[in-house]
Parts: sequence; structure tokens; C-alpha cells
Amino acid sequence: MINVVLLGTGNVATHLFRAFAATENVRVRQVYNHSETSLSFFSNKTAVTTSLDDLFEADIYLIALKDDVIAETAQQLSGRKGIVAHTSGGSSIEVLDSCDRRGVFYPLQTFSKQKTLDYSQIPFCIEAGTGEDLELLRAMAGPISGKAYEINSPQRKRLHLAAVFVCNFVNHLYAVGETICQEGDMPFEILQPLIQETAHKIISDSPRDVQTGPAIRNDKSTIKAHLDLLQDPENKEIYHLLTKAIQTFHGKKL
Amino acid sequence: MINVVLLGTGNVATHLFRAFAATENVRVRQVYNHSETSLSFFSNKTAVTTSLDDLFEADIYLIALKDDVIAETAQQLSGRKGIVAHTSGGSSIEVLDSCDRRGVFYPLQTFSKQKTLDYSQIPFCIEAGTGEDLELLRAMAGPISGKAYEINSPQRKRLHLAAVFVCNFVNHLYAVGETICQEGDMPFEILQPLIQETAHKIISDSPRDVQTGPAIRNDKSTIKAHLDLLQDPENKEIYHLLTKAIQTFHGKKL
Repeated sequence: MINVVLLGTGNVATHLFRAFAATENVRVRQVYNHSETSLSFFSNKTAVTTSLDDLFEADIYLIALKDDVIAETAQQLSGRKGIVAHTSGGSSIEVLDSCDRRGVFYPLQTFSKQKTLDYSQIPFCIEAGTGEDLELLRAMAGPISGKAYEINSPQRKRLHLAAVFVCNFVNHLYAVGETICQEGDMPFEILQPLIQETAHKIISDSPRDVQTGPAIRNDKSTIKAHLDLLQDPENKEIYHLLTKAIQTFHGKKL
Repeated sequence: MINVVLLGTGNVATHLFRAFAATENVRVRQVYNHSETSLSFFSNKTAVTTSLDDLFEADIYLIALKDDVIAETAQQLSGRKGIVAHTSGGSSIEVLDSCDRRGVFYPLQTFSKQKTLDYSQIPFCIEAGTGEDLELLRAMAGPISGKAYEINSPQRKRLHLAAVFVCNFVNHLYAVGETICQEGDMPFEILQPLIQETAHKIISDSPRDVQTGPAIRNDKSTIKAHLDLLQDPENKEIYHLLTKAIQTFHGKKL
């Protein structure tokens, strides 16, 4: 049994709590947050506290707090025996330097609080100061998805950047698509099969091999017609830039 | 039984041929293309011809050719009794004005020639000169997916534009993500669950309600770190513009 004290009550903390609750090998003994209110979801499920001085002993102190408070929180845990690990894609393991045993346990997924998720699909990017601690983090990922990748801090930073492109930016393009549909009195559902197939396609094929559309065909009249149709100046700019980027990317390759 | 003469041998034509072949109610009697070579795939499955003068009688002449040759091809079919319909998202029904009976049968999907597709998921955007011809087009979509939306030419132009955002541009962002992974010696598969979940999420929720990431949080230090990390000037520009666009889009809404 791995005993965990979870610090944080946001999206990542809430989903990790749920994921651990469904396993037999990991137990979240306590949840910490500086404010009482956000602890209410957890308080009838496990112990909670608003004080870092009152944390239980644990194998792992898992910090799922905002990036800019990880270092100071870790400092207050520096005397603890367990591993102090954070869950952040954007923070180096070095922000935990005040602690003897340190690690990173970064779940590479997009979390919305209300949404249920298939935890068995989440890849965990793990890093630790020692091989032994790495194994403990791997054991913590095991019962959830079994997918643990050893990723060092510079790699994780890149991965976090890649995630912004394939998740946050992609979602915004979905929002633009939805807006264009609505402005033409068409239901967004009409685009769903296309969206799902576009994502599905690249499970088996590299995205660079399945690029389609007016940009890669250099279909100038369609590109012009689309730019004429776009009213919103920012969407026009996006269309222009991504068309150019597709042509540069594939031009370079050819 | 609906008899179809199919004009074209590209991605759309090939997939439509396969989709019709799997139904009982639609029969592709003949495939036309101006060049002999590209007809070889079809020649042992149905009649083929390279001459527009030799086309069989049919209920529907389905033009799945490049946008810029649709009008001239339609002109040569102007004496025909059947409906002359094209499959293009970007062309108006007016390019068929030389024909008495005209229609549009636009499958809203991304087609790669080699890739097998679940045709039962394809929405068809249909348009016709008369209600009777519209029903014939609907009947042609029926046995494939049953998903037929009546969409007029200005709407279809918008839809085609939306498709560029949610399919072609999204695929390019996947390609950028893959490149960033490769440059950091990480397998692209690590991003797959995130990509699939990002697409899956918006089946039930509007993309504007599930936007996450540093842009919408206005997390300036992460945005700066990401921009510093990006080497490629075009990817830097994409990061910058999409971050700004997300902030404008959600700022407007708030």
C-alpha cells in the first residue's frame, strides 16, 4: 500500500484523487489546501487540513498546486521522510531542491472538473532523484493506467509545450469551427465525424503524411474565397498563418 | 435501385465508390476519367470510360472532379435526363446551371486514399434544384450513413471553411506536436490519449466551455517559457497568435 498526502483541490488533484480511490494499492490519507471551502468535496472521503504543519506521515507528498507556489510549499515539507513530488508539466524537478527525496508525477491529460475520464488511458511522466524513488512513482501509476514514461525535466517542458499545440490550440480551432457553423445556422454536430476522424487518423499514420486541404494543394482560389468569407480579423490571421505554415512545413520536406 | 455514373477517380470518388459498392440500393454503373491510368482500380469492378460522349444513362451523374473543371464537365452533360450533381464543398450549385436537373452531394469527411473509413459516420450535405431531386439525393445517402443535411450553397461554403479549421489546421497542429516530441527524443504516442480526449470532450461539451491551458489562465510565465523554447519562427508565430486569439475569444465572452 502506498500512502499519499495530496496537496491541492483543483482539476488535477480532484481527478487524481478519484483515480487513486478506484485502486487498491494507493490510498490518499489526507488532502491539504490553504482554504477550507475547496476541501468540502474531500472531507467526507478522507482526512483534510488547511495547515502544512498538520500533514500526516506519507510515502509520497503529491503537490498538485499552481506552479508558482510549488517551491515554497516544498520548502515547508523539507524535513519529511517521504518523496515530495509535483504534478506540473511546466515546472522542473529543481523547484523541489529543498527536499531530500523529490519527484515528478505529471499526468499528460486535459482535465475538466465535471467531466468523467477514462483514467486507464492517462500516460504519467515520471522523474525522481533516485532509481528507488522512480520505482515508487512507477508503482503509483501502475494501478491507474500502467502507462509510465521516464521523462526528464527539459523533456517534460517540451512535452508540455507540445500539449498546448495539440490540445489547447486544437480546442480553440474547434471553437472557431463551432462559431462558423452557428453563424451559418448549422448545427456543430455536422462537423463531429470529421473532427473525430481527423484525430483518429493519426493513431496509425503520422500527421505529416495525412495532411489534406487547400493549403497543401496550394489551391489559391479556395484560399482566397475562404479569406474573403472570414469577417473576424483574428480568424483571418489564423487562416493566413496556418496556411503559410502548412506550405512551409511540407515545402521543407519535399 | 439508383443508377450512378461516377466522374472522377480521386480520393472522394474512390471512397464513394467503395461506400456505394457496400449498399444494395445504389449501383455505380460506370466510372469516367479523362486519363486511362487512374481507371485501372475500377475497371475490373464496373464499366469505365475516358470519353464524356460514351456515358451510360443514369439517375445521377456524380462529378467528383477538381473544382475548376466541374462547370465545363457539367456543360457537356447538359442534354442528360439524370441529375447532374457535384461533390464539392467549395463550389456553388450554380456551376451546374447549364444542366436542367442539378444537385450537390458533399460528403463532409477527410479522405485519404489508402485509409479505410467508417462510412456509416459520414454526413452528406445535399442540395438540389427541386424537392424531388433532393429526395433522390437523400435516398442515395440513406444506405451509406442515413445522415443527410439539407445545406444551401452559401452555408456549404461556410461549412467547408469550418472544416479547414477543425480538420486541416488541427492536423497541422498535430504535426507540430509530433515534431516537438521528436526533437526531445520522445515518442509521439505519449500525446495520443490527450489528442483523443481533446476531440472526444467536445462531443458532449461546447469547445468554448472546455478551453484549458496557459492562454485562458493568462499564465504569463508559462507563455514566456514556451515562446523561449520554440526555435522555429513559424511555430513561435502560431503560439503567439493562437494565445492572443484564445484570450480575445474568451475576453469577448466574459
